[in-house]
Amino acid sequence: MSNTKSYAAYNDKDALKPYDFDRRQVGANDVQIDIEYCGICHSDIHMAHNDWGMSTYPIVPGHEIIGRVTSVGANVEEFKEGQLVGVGCMVDSCRECEPCKQDLEQHCEKGMVMTYGSPDPHSTDAITQGGYSTQIVVDKDFVLNVSEDLDTKAVAPLLCAGITTYSPLKQWNVKPGDKVGVIGLGGLGHMGVKLAAAMGAEVIIITRTKEKGEDAVRLGAKEVLVSTDEEQMEKHAGTFDFLLNTIPVSHNLDPYIPLLKLGKTMAVVGASPAEMNTMGIVFGRKIIAGSLIGGIKETQEMLDFCAENNIVSDVEVINMQDVNTAYERVLKSDIKYRFVIDMQSLKN
Amino acid sequence: MSNTKSYAAYNDKDALKPYDFDRRQVGANDVQIDIEYCGICHSDIHMAHNDWGMSTYPIVPGHEIIGRVTSVGANVEEFKEGQLVGVGCMVDSCRECEPCKQDLEQHCEKGMVMTYGSPDPHSTDAITQGGYSTQIVVDKDFVLNVSEDLDTKAVAPLLCAGITTYSPLKQWNVKPGDKVGVIGLGGLGHMGVKLAAAMGAEVIIITRTKEKGEDAVRLGAKEVLVSTDEEQMEKHAGTFDFLLNTIPVSHNLDPYIPLLKLGKTMAVVGASPAEMNTMGIVFGRKIIAGSLIGGIKETQEMLDFCAENNIVSDVEVINMQDVNTAYERVLKSDIKYRFVIDMQSLKN
Repeated sequence: MSNTKSYAAYNDKDALKPYDFDRRQVGANDVQIDIEYCGICHSDIHMAHNDWGMSTYPIVPGHEIIGRVTSVGANVEEFKEGQLVGVGCMVDSCRECEPCKQDLEQHCEKGMVMTYGSPDPHSTDAITQGGYSTQIVVDKDFVLNVSEDLDTKAVAPLLCAGITTYSPLKQWNVKPGDKVGVIGLGGLGHMGVKLAAAMGAEVIIITRTKEKGEDAVRLGAKEVLVSTDEEQMEKHAGTFDFLLNTIPVSHNLDPYIPLLKLGKTMAVVGASPAEMNTMGIVFGRKIIAGSLIGGIKETQEMLDFCAENNIVSDVEVINMQDVNTAYERVLKSDIKYRFVIDMQSLKN
Repeated sequence: MSNTKSYAAYNDKDALKPYDFDRRQVGANDVQIDIEYCGICHSDIHMAHNDWGMSTYPIVPGHEIIGRVTSVGANVEEFKEGQLVGVGCMVDSCRECEPCKQDLEQHCEKGMVMTYGSPDPHSTDAITQGGYSTQIVVDKDFVLNVSEDLDTKAVAPLLCAGITTYSPLKQWNVKPGDKVGVIGLGGLGHMGVKLAAAMGAEVIIITRTKEKGEDAVRLGAKEVLVSTDEEQMEKHAGTFDFLLNTIPVSHNLDPYIPLLKLGKTMAVVGASPAEMNTMGIVFGRKIIAGSLIGGIKETQEMLDFCAENNIVSDVEVINMQDVNTAYERVLKSDIKYRFVIDMQSLKN
């Protein structure tokens, strides 16, 4: 009998279904975690559907994992049984290259080991399997401390959506009083609004739908800027210290670049085709910068920042059995703002 | 009888033809310059043809101007009669906004006064007229010192092609030992190669044509990287500290971004439509930055750097009467690397 229950995609077309498999035994540096909640990230759907051409099956998605330690290896002093912990998008890296030494494991030169879908360094014939499961075994260096003071289920999305938006805000030095525009109000955008506001920035949500944008005011945004309203966009031209672009689909960058002040930056966190006329960045010597999740050290910093500022994600909790309906709703953007699976539903 | 002879475009279709007009009288802060040489920049052709929809006619192009001072106003102590001077892309700005105070007049909030084609602040009914002319009158703060030690005719293109490539190399801190890729080998690219090499960088020219690229080795490049050769491009992946993109036409950025090291920058100096998949900048958190000519202070710094390092442009000198043939050859990239008009031909 296998030691782990889960839901997996068996191919790129069918709905996710139950899947039993064995996690590895707890090694000397490992932490075993009983999973309580796992968030649903849009990339889970891309991987289940093989949209990026890199999926092997069966695959268990999930990289926004919150749970409690059930066992630790001989070398593990950092975590103890019963402790609340998190696991994000990575479970290992080479630890030896320059990026790894600089706490940028997400840019490991040999490639980070993703929480699911990567060749498993502990096995010659398996891939890593993610958090839509009852338990996981992870090297201690990739396990995060989670505060007991926050709403546990709503912490889960911080592990991906939180760090993805926190990292560029920090890298580009967003500070109190800065005017920050968050483009797009989905799972990432709503975290960007909360985090930038907590950093003291004046946050403007930039979206195509006024009604949708108004919800961002509740999250901490000062104002809604409707990107299709040319008059409004013109009014805000040249006034932003930073733009956080969370658009997940093909788009044109030209409407947004004029919003930036001279020499300022738009960070892009979504991977999609984009178009622009470079005249927009040449005049005003503007900057477009990519950003990818964050390293483990920075992820811990983000979780601590969220604990200090009482920041969690806005979530809708579902049972594991409802994951396929949730996927359909994510694809229709019918969620404010993140689904989280209550893993108790899989254990019963 | 008018005080200035020139060649002007009279409309967006016909060849440039002789045009006589009056320059203003020399004001208290003005420097009057007898023009000896003027370079032909690709943007001259865009403006003559109204490609950017902002031209009014007749228009006298030319913003790579070298000449000698013939007269100065009462307040001018910086320049004296007979001195060799240059005028670049700007002849004035508001002097009061933040960018102007930061020596970034090219980003003046009220708009720089371009050397040709801008409303003339000294006249209510005229535009500024450029360097395809016998003389020009310019405010002293927009006149540059030029060394007598360099080949005068070959200095002219430094005023646009030189500063356009020098400024991003400095802004992004290119230093000895850096591996720098210059993309495109035209008027801008050939200056980028010379300047980056003089800064101590290991320069690689990145071009679609191997034969063309080989000429760059003569200019100071260490190697030619043919961008259409996937094997070569793969070999150089992740090794560049900086890329200077001088491509002047619509292009896709995706082949070039993987060349950059983690966190490094591609500066873009051309204004054109561009496409990319943002995945390229997200993975490796790379940066795409625009850059526009340079301020007056930096232009002087560039001219001094060129004098110290004996850097000039590779030029082909023509008579004013041959400008239309030169335009045709520029459009076919049939020039190594810049046409310069000998203005004596217009005075005779």
